[in-house]
Amino acid sequence: MYEGVVQDLIDELGRLPGVGPKSAQRIAFHILQAEPADVRRLAHALTEVKAKVRFCEVCGNVAEEERCRVCQDPRRDPSVICVVEEPKDVVAVERTREFRGRYHVLGGAISPIDGVGPDDLRIRELLARLADGSVTELILATDPNLEGEATATYLARMVGSFGLRVTRLASGLPVGGDLEYADEVTLGRAFEGRRLLDV
Amino acid sequence: MYEGVVQDLIDELGRLPGVGPKSAQRIAFHILQAEPADVRRLAHALTEVKAKVRFCEVCGNVAEEERCRVCQDPRRDPSVICVVEEPKDVVAVERTREFRGRYHVLGGAISPIDGVGPDDLRIRELLARLADGSVTELILATDPNLEGEATATYLARMVGSFGLRVTRLASGLPVGGDLEYADEVTLGRAFEGRRLLDV
Repeated sequence: MYEGVVQDLIDELGRLPGVGPKSAQRIAFHILQAEPADVRRLAHALTEVKAKVRFCEVCGNVAEEERCRVCQDPRRDPSVICVVEEPKDVVAVERTREFRGRYHVLGGAISPIDGVGPDDLRIRELLARLADGSVTELILATDPNLEGEATATYLARMVGSFGLRVTRLASGLPVGGDLEYADEVTLGRAFEGRRLLDV
Repeated sequence: MYEGVVQDLIDELGRLPGVGPKSAQRIAFHILQAEPADVRRLAHALTEVKAKVRFCEVCGNVAEEERCRVCQDPRRDPSVICVVEEPKDVVAVERTREFRGRYHVLGGAISPIDGVGPDDLRIRELLARLADGSVTELILATDPNLEGEATATYLARMVGSFGLRVTRLASGLPVGGDLEYADEVTLGRAFEGRRLLDV
């Protein structure tokens, strides 16, 4: 329907996740009217990311060098590894400023329905990191959904022989949320995991 | 929070309309894992659009040459002009295959709240096109909302002296919709505009 290059842009934008045909059209018209310098910056950011970003050879996190910033940081405790599904989960945990250990990014979760099995994740690399016995705790921070729970259960079984402390993040009510809006599974988990208050 | 170039990309994506911080992050990680050739195509489409696309010197529609495809097409009736707000409205009308005339793209609608007055729209250019008397009908196809109606009313008054047929698109129930879900204004318009059936 559009002149050639506009349609090309709409097609390319429509391939991005969460961008439907209407949004692609809207973004394309925004681009048409935007400052050329702004568009050049976006195009440059896209190609730079492909040129410069790779994945950390140790933990699988996003990195601009062979190792990511966390793995390069000598102040980060190498005896505790937090296992997450994706690099964006690393960012979420870093934001809490609660965790001072290292990470291991699996690259997804076990999901038979999507054809993702244990061999498709960076589990072999995780076991290799545990081999020298310097790791004492493994925090399984996969998502609290079906796939994440299955992955955590699988990993807990796999590392059983290493004799380390294996933990899972607590499930419960979100802080700042309303009890009445919590789904029954979350509320059930909150009851299960209730803590004694020091009074 | 992210390594430099990843954050740069998230920032640039977050400036696009309808792309919030979460979507920007999601798209950025998609880009990270995408084929380099796909990303190159997207970056190329962005720069190509800025390099090649301009606005038709006659009607203001998107064009790759001095005139858009509709204005270049000798089979399109130059005596009927359909006035729309944006180039994407041209595409919407073209999709109906009902209209064989030409267009005039205003570049928006009159909206005092957004500081858009008649002088910010391509109204002077429209009046210039009507000056030689070859146009016989002006179809006002601005949006059926407050701004679009105000713009249509303003234009109808402005072109009153040209002695041409000025029409507005019909308002009424959307085809395929449910009467019970129509808002009262639309339903009211549908009553006002009811047609006699030939039986």
